[in-house]
Amino acid sequence: MMDGLDWIAVDWGTSNLRAWLMAADGTILDKRSSDRGMNALSRDGFEPALLDLVGDAIGNGPVTVIVCGMAGSRQGWAEAPYRSVPSAPPQLSAATRALVHDPRLDVRILPGLKQEQPADVMRGEETQLRGIFLANPGFDGTICLPGTHTKWVQVSAREVVSFRTFMTGELYALLSANSVLRHSIGEGWDGEAFSEAVSDAMSRPGSVAGHLFGLRAEGLLRGLDGARAASRLSGLLIGLELAGARPYWLGQPIILAGASDLSRAYESALSAQGAAVERLDSEAVTLAGLVAARADMKETAT
Amino acid sequence: MMDGLDWIAVDWGTSNLRAWLMAADGTILDKRSSDRGMNALSRDGFEPALLDLVGDAIGNGPVTVIVCGMAGSRQGWAEAPYRSVPSAPPQLSAATRALVHDPRLDVRILPGLKQEQPADVMRGEETQLRGIFLANPGFDGTICLPGTHTKWVQVSAREVVSFRTFMTGELYALLSANSVLRHSIGEGWDGEAFSEAVSDAMSRPGSVAGHLFGLRAEGLLRGLDGARAASRLSGLLIGLELAGARPYWLGQPIILAGASDLSRAYESALSAQGAAVERLDSEAVTLAGLVAARADMKETAT
Repeated sequence: MMDGLDWIAVDWGTSNLRAWLMAADGTILDKRSSDRGMNALSRDGFEPALLDLVGDAIGNGPVTVIVCGMAGSRQGWAEAPYRSVPSAPPQLSAATRALVHDPRLDVRILPGLKQEQPADVMRGEETQLRGIFLANPGFDGTICLPGTHTKWVQVSAREVVSFRTFMTGELYALLSANSVLRHSIGEGWDGEAFSEAVSDAMSRPGSVAGHLFGLRAEGLLRGLDGARAASRLSGLLIGLELAGARPYWLGQPIILAGASDLSRAYESALSAQGAAVERLDSEAVTLAGLVAARADMKETAT
Repeated sequence: MMDGLDWIAVDWGTSNLRAWLMAADGTILDKRSSDRGMNALSRDGFEPALLDLVGDAIGNGPVTVIVCGMAGSRQGWAEAPYRSVPSAPPQLSAATRALVHDPRLDVRILPGLKQEQPADVMRGEETQLRGIFLANPGFDGTICLPGTHTKWVQVSAREVVSFRTFMTGELYALLSANSVLRHSIGEGWDGEAFSEAVSDAMSRPGSVAGHLFGLRAEGLLRGLDGARAASRLSGLLIGLELAGARPYWLGQPIILAGASDLSRAYESALSAQGAAVERLDSEAVTLAGLVAARADMKETAT
């Protein structure tokens, strides 16, 4: 076994698999990742994918692997049934054990959260939320987790009260790569174009589908710059989201945790609305949530 | 040459090529189509694609071919520069001649229309509009052309005053085939789910990106029926569009011309808002516009 390896933390999403090889004292011995997310795997593929990534480190084992994310979905490795909100982020006692062929592995998959009305689900974000609560124990307000499916989460007393998911990131990816706008979208960032577009979409959300084609038309008629088009597209979609998520952020303290560029874009849009925003590193909070789940296990054992 | 063939009408769009083989008296001798739209062709590919489709019919020629649509774009066969609105639909004298290798072909490509503010463009729809004007010579009001890129057109005295394009159809195609919603969308139609979704989106357009993910969540939590999900997706996107296009349809007489299922959906959404709608067949109005362009040519010749 890798010197000092105590357990493995895993964030297994739709498109990516990330693992941290952890020592007992919390030191990160190694960090590894692959593109073998849930979408690339059948149920039988999860164990081999994990072994390909970390098998060399586990020696004769046994080793505990704590997993959050889509690996716990019905199409994943083993279903970890959702907990209903209002709820604290699930502890390890709620995890599902994955059936494994390799006796060196002890795999626990953390459940996600569900909400009946309006219907919504999260998997992985609940573990990020636990990490955020640890770093901000007294926080009451709104947590925004920007990403492919951005989550807005109302929290109080370290519980998730309600949440809402917006497909903003996936819409951006589809429109910039697969729609007629692909001809207009370029690299780079134009903060002014972004801010204008946020403001356009927030003041008239219904105009967004029209403004989208406007990017193409401006490209054809006036040679709209590719960075400007990309920033405007992002601004239109984030502005539409902010119009819909207003009850979550208006007058609330906000913590943002997502990829750094995307979080900065959200921060700039929210700050322009006078909202008070604190930004956290999303990878750090994910790992902190997994570390807390590992601590649950030790508490149970003692 | 095919018995009685006088000219060929062509609607050459992004994804499809449609040709009507026409007699001098307006009889349709044959109708043919292929999937060799602009996106499938390089500049050199247009002439062979046309000859593959109709070459057998033109004998020793020569034959006049009148084309509307994306074949006239910069990436098309030969650029037919846009006319600026306000403008009547362009006549044949504004068409661009395509360079051809086959001397039997005399190809004229009709220009589209552009608008500077807000930036917008159309190619092909201007010819549909001409067909609509012929069938409704006294019409003043709004024409809606539902499709991949739905056009809302304000017309007066057989001129296009202004127009606005919404990417609603392309958004539907991307979301239903390429997003996480593909797992939830099925076949069939649920009129009630459509109407509810239109109403949700119109009353709170900003909520649409949240409602979209809600379709996925309802699929996971409550087994949302595939037809219901598809109808709700369509309703959310059309509702968002109607919220943005309100200045076009509110208090205006409206003519709808598009594919029949889609036009019926728009009609149902608009009727629920108390709008007076007349539906026309989009293929018929396209051909009528091309026939009018052919008549321009004969008038010039005499």
